[in-house]
Amino acid sequence: MSAKVGVIMGSTSDWETMKHACELLDQLAIPYEKKVVSAHRTPDLMFEYAATAVERGLQVIIAGAGGAAHLPGMVASKTVLPVIGVPVKSSNLNGLDSLLSIVQMPGGVPVATMAIGKAGAINAALMAASIIGSTDKEVQSRLIAWREAMKQKVLDSSDSLGVEGP
Amino acid sequence: MSAKVGVIMGSTSDWETMKHACELLDQLAIPYEKKVVSAHRTPDLMFEYAATAVERGLQVIIAGAGGAAHLPGMVASKTVLPVIGVPVKSSNLNGLDSLLSIVQMPGGVPVATMAIGKAGAINAALMAASIIGSTDKEVQSRLIAWREAMKQKVLDSSDSLGVEGP
Amino acid sequence: MSAKVGVIMGSTSDWETMKHACELLDQLAIPYEKKVVSAHRTPDLMFEYAATAVERGLQVIIAGAGGAAHLPGMVASKTVLPVIGVPVKSSNLNGLDSLLSIVQMPGGVPVATMAIGKAGAINAALMAASIIGSTDKEVQSRLIAWREAMKQKVLDSSDSLGVEGP
Amino acid sequence: MSAKVGVIMGSTSDWETMKHACELLDQLAIPYEKKVVSAHRTPDLMFEYAATAVERGLQVIIAGAGGAAHLPGMVASKTVLPVIGVPVKSSNLNGLDSLLSIVQMPGGVPVATMAIGKAGAINAALMAASIIGSTDKEVQSRLIAWREAMKQKVLDSSDSLGVEGP
Amino acid sequence: MSAKVGVIMGSTSDWETMKHACELLDQLAIPYEKKVVSAHRTPDLMFEYAATAVERGLQVIIAGAGGAAHLPGMVASKTVLPVIGVPVKSSNLNGLDSLLSIVQMPGGVPVATMAIGKAGAINAALMAASIIGSTDKEVQSRLIAWREAMKQKVLDSSDSLGVEGP
Amino acid sequence: MSAKVGVIMGSTSDWETMKHACELLDQLAIPYEKKVVSAHRTPDLMFEYAATAVERGLQVIIAGAGGAAHLPGMVASKTVLPVIGVPVKSSNLNGLDSLLSIVQMPGGVPVATMAIGKAGAINAALMAASIIGSTDKEVQSRLIAWREAMKQKVLDSSDSLGVEGP
Amino acid sequence: MSAKVGVIMGSTSDWETMKHACELLDQLAIPYEKKVVSAHRTPDLMFEYAATAVERGLQVIIAGAGGAAHLPGMVASKTVLPVIGVPVKSSNLNGLDSLLSIVQMPGGVPVATMAIGKAGAINAALMAASIIGSTDKEVQSRLIAWREAMKQKVLDSSDSLGVEGP
Amino acid sequence: MSAKVGVIMGSTSDWETMKHACELLDQLAIPYEKKVVSAHRTPDLMFEYAATAVERGLQVIIAGAGGAAHLPGMVASKTVLPVIGVPVKSSNLNGLDSLLSIVQMPGGVPVATMAIGKAGAINAALMAASIIGSTDKEVQSRLIAWREAMKQKVLDSSDSLGVEGP
Repeated sequence: MSAKVGVIMGSTSDWETMKHACELLDQLAIPYEKKVVSAHRTPDLMFEYAATAVERGLQVIIAGAGGAAHLPGMVASKTVLPVIGVPVKSSNLNGLDSLLSIVQMPGGVPVATMAIGKAGAINAALMAASIIGSTDKEVQSRLIAWREAMKQKVLDSSDSLGVEGP
Repeated sequence: MSAKVGVIMGSTSDWETMKHACELLDQLAIPYEKKVVSAHRTPDLMFEYAATAVERGLQVIIAGAGGAAHLPGMVASKTVLPVIGVPVKSSNLNGLDSLLSIVQMPGGVPVATMAIGKAGAINAALMAASIIGSTDKEVQSRLIAWREAMKQKVLDSSDSLGVEGP
Repeated sequence: MSAKVGVIMGSTSDWETMKHACELLDQLAIPYEKKVVSAHRTPDLMFEYAATAVERGLQVIIAGAGGAAHLPGMVASKTVLPVIGVPVKSSNLNGLDSLLSIVQMPGGVPVATMAIGKAGAINAALMAASIIGSTDKEVQSRLIAWREAMKQKVLDSSDSLGVEGP
Repeated sequence: MSAKVGVIMGSTSDWETMKHACELLDQLAIPYEKKVVSAHRTPDLMFEYAATAVERGLQVIIAGAGGAAHLPGMVASKTVLPVIGVPVKSSNLNGLDSLLSIVQMPGGVPVATMAIGKAGAINAALMAASIIGSTDKEVQSRLIAWREAMKQKVLDSSDSLGVEGP
Repeated sequence: MSAKVGVIMGSTSDWETMKHACELLDQLAIPYEKKVVSAHRTPDLMFEYAATAVERGLQVIIAGAGGAAHLPGMVASKTVLPVIGVPVKSSNLNGLDSLLSIVQMPGGVPVATMAIGKAGAINAALMAASIIGSTDKEVQSRLIAWREAMKQKVLDSSDSLGVEGP
Repeated sequence: MSAKVGVIMGSTSDWETMKHACELLDQLAIPYEKKVVSAHRTPDLMFEYAATAVERGLQVIIAGAGGAAHLPGMVASKTVLPVIGVPVKSSNLNGLDSLLSIVQMPGGVPVATMAIGKAGAINAALMAASIIGSTDKEVQSRLIAWREAMKQKVLDSSDSLGVEGP
Repeated sequence: MSAKVGVIMGSTSDWETMKHACELLDQLAIPYEKKVVSAHRTPDLMFEYAATAVERGLQVIIAGAGGAAHLPGMVASKTVLPVIGVPVKSSNLNGLDSLLSIVQMPGGVPVATMAIGKAGAINAALMAASIIGSTDKEVQSRLIAWREAMKQKVLDSSDSLGVEGP
Repeated sequence: MSAKVGVIMGSTSDWETMKHACELLDQLAIPYEKKVVSAHRTPDLMFEYAATAVERGLQVIIAGAGGAAHLPGMVASKTVLPVIGVPVKSSNLNGLDSLLSIVQMPGGVPVATMAIGKAGAINAALMAASIIGSTDKEVQSRLIAWREAMKQKVLDSSDSLGVEGP
């Protein structure tokens, strides 16, 4: 089945974060492709990737990047698809630079920005599922089931508090 | 025609920002409803609004809030629809508090966060159009046309530099 | 003896911080209950917990959360009891996001915010003791004694400076 | 009727913020006293104020200060009463310095910190009412009524959106 | 005489800042061209501009942008010329977002980042003069003369302190 | 009488802040000189000023600067006198850059850093008086009297609260 | 010989930082005393310490504290001696809270603030030496010699670059 | 062959960062010299180094420093050569202080600021190559080749995603 979500990242070092998005897409049975695409080091590849995304059948693009994180915003400038940005934690400023570089887009070109790091990668997959699920009721059902399971896990967790340490 | 987008905000003082989202939805001919819903002052209304959003036919919710901005995240906890968050500029910390309160959601409940203030409100409408447009080709066409017009405006603007002052 | 203080937290990972509040409540012999209640993952449980707090005999609620920490503020929106918020250190922004999400509440719904992390959890218990102690003189006496012991410990500590290293 | 709440501030320039606390205490019919007490310029007065607060019948102290805001924390070090701190917006750092100086108290001496500025002053009064109301049911009733009126005001406010501008 | 420096900016609203760079290039008699080129709204124009800069005879590119300021970094990814970035003050975060988006480039693609706002625009022109001047001794001489005049102005300025107010 | 304190600043625009230091030195009858000395635009003058400060009879140097504020630290590197640094509020980052540039000196060369802006300028003069007063009992007496007057002013100020507005 | 410098700190955990001040005072042969004095936990001791500092022969006080670091400012409010503040690195906010709490003193009560952590502790001792040295030429000579040795160490250090790794 | 680039740093502890600049200059076969020059501890050496840079044949200076990082800006004040600044990560504030101290230069004296840490050191060498390459076509060719290799490496890297873990 052809990919519905494109998961891209600026370098292989972002994989440690972005794999959490892929794992969740796997759980939700949403087909995706993954690729290293660097805004600064492979700008032409990036433009081509974004410009051909619609015709290749993608419905959502998830882009992770750190530091002066230009990948999500530049991809968004070249496609009409929803682009979800994941700020990867940077080595010096803890991802605050990544976050501001992704979220503070000028009026005209939005990026749906998630939290910094792992939580953001997980949520990027869930947001993609939510978008796809708005017209694909099977995906939506799987998303609802996933959320219900998450809720149950929290409800059960109080019992373990202080039993054997945290 | 029934509303496809719900535009909510924490207080009437957020309207100065959020009206830019509504103006753009008007331009893109996407039907919407607008409402003041406060996470802290009308929590039950907020829960009801979010819990009934799907059955009322909404496809996307745009939520604007400032300071300890809990509205987007709490609405997202009660609906499976995509929720877009707009951090409204706060009076003391310039919206940095609003931004962090909206974007730093834990893994499990995503909010598609936009830029602080007016640019974020404009982009929230464009993101909603992008999501709806993924299956509604008419909306997508209008979005593409809007972006083309924006591009043309930039291309024309160089001529005015330094002619009569900025 | 029924609980006077409710200690809640957004996830089991917050226990490492919040256990310091519980330890101090134990020391001060103030009965409490502890529970995992997530604003985003179990919103209905949270509302029910808050809405029934008065009738269950609680006098104070201590809520710890990290990141986009909505738990303290949302609980405060559903109860007239004093709510004490503890910003748990977040993995990327060191708890600055937690702090701002908790403290920057809009006018109308206060949260008594403590310091980030362990110190904040300790102080949450002391603040609860201070509130309860205003009408329960036994609790107040134990609080005064605890503070006196703390003071004595500081007075004694100068002797150890530089004796065997820090 | 003797004062139950002491409202103090570091200088007369803080009154513009702290008057909002006093106005709300007036609305809730909670007797209070107000006074300029500077941690740095009148340290002895501050210590005396704090040390005699219990015997003078105060139940809560609200302290507002800006910049290196030491007043709330130092008062808390000299009394067993609950101390509520209001970070006043500073001229250069927008109150971020005030906030951190008040909230980041070491374990042992808590200050119940509110939001920066006017919202924080309003909430300080509400928190005081919540604390007093835990044993004074008349105060609690007035607080509940005040919150209900606030809620109603939000519910009514949607009608005005976009009618005559924000 | 053909342009040696290309001065570009993301929107006409950046002209108020970037005109200071142009004024100084005028003073130093360095030929330049100026143009609005938006990374997000005219990405193809931006790529073409950068890719043809060498063959068109440019020696340095000065790029000003605000918010999620991707223009300088993306231009740098498409040219081997030195690119100087000027962070334009943004409306909400005072240019801190602009600064981090420009300066925190990943290893491989440098941007010579200047101060936020007017000082940065002035210094961008001086840095361009310094780069060109390293092989064009006439430009270097004019730069040295400009700096000498600046120094003299400071030396003369003490006399005016307190004479007629600041 | 020859100057005991040298008050220097990076540009005439800093005078609006630094005049508050001079006014207080006037009040305390401490002779001083004032001068514009720029670290970046007149580096040689700065070095000469610092290197000859002892022989010219200065006992303390007060240096105010904004942005990348190098003046206090560089003067400190060239003299054994105590150097007091005043971070002048910068136009974009509110003086946070000035503060960090002055206070974060490496081990070996201290600068006695004051608060940002007017309060810092006032305190620089008081710190100079405190240093000089440690061996000049007349100066110390005047400092003690000034502080006593300040205290009295605070003690009197409570009466005006709420009388005629703030 | 009686102490000329008082080195105080808020808790024994600050000793790891403040010992660097003591080591340098030892090197410069300046007699000092060291003591744990907590603003919040032993406020009366702090006031007494500050109020009696002059009569006990101290010439300078060095105070180190972290978090809501009130010790330096409160000591300064109770003595006319120069007070040097050292912001100790805090566990969550890296000492930014300590720095702002110490440096942002209101006009009237200065604290000579040093860098965060070890460098600040070292510089506190050097600043004390500079102040004492202004009238004690022996101390000044030792300070000059110390600085000369430091300079020589830097001059010699280039040789080691890259020889055996960093 | 005589050095074209001078690589200087404030202390030997900066070598861990600045060696990355030297390694890249080696790869690009650009002759350079390296030296420890401290703005604060060897100010005269710094001035001499900067003042003689042109006559010694340097074309670019790369200066790395941390904390109150005055080295790049002060060197820039004493030479007409392009100065590239590398903010070294500081132990407490993660290099934010280094960055602001280097980049926020006043109008008149520019420093070409790079990213914090290793990426910045690498980019400083590339920026130097870009500047030198504008008139030295051999250097430019090597720079182009280096960038092409970097691009190829990214293009190849996608294959490894998820193959054997990150």
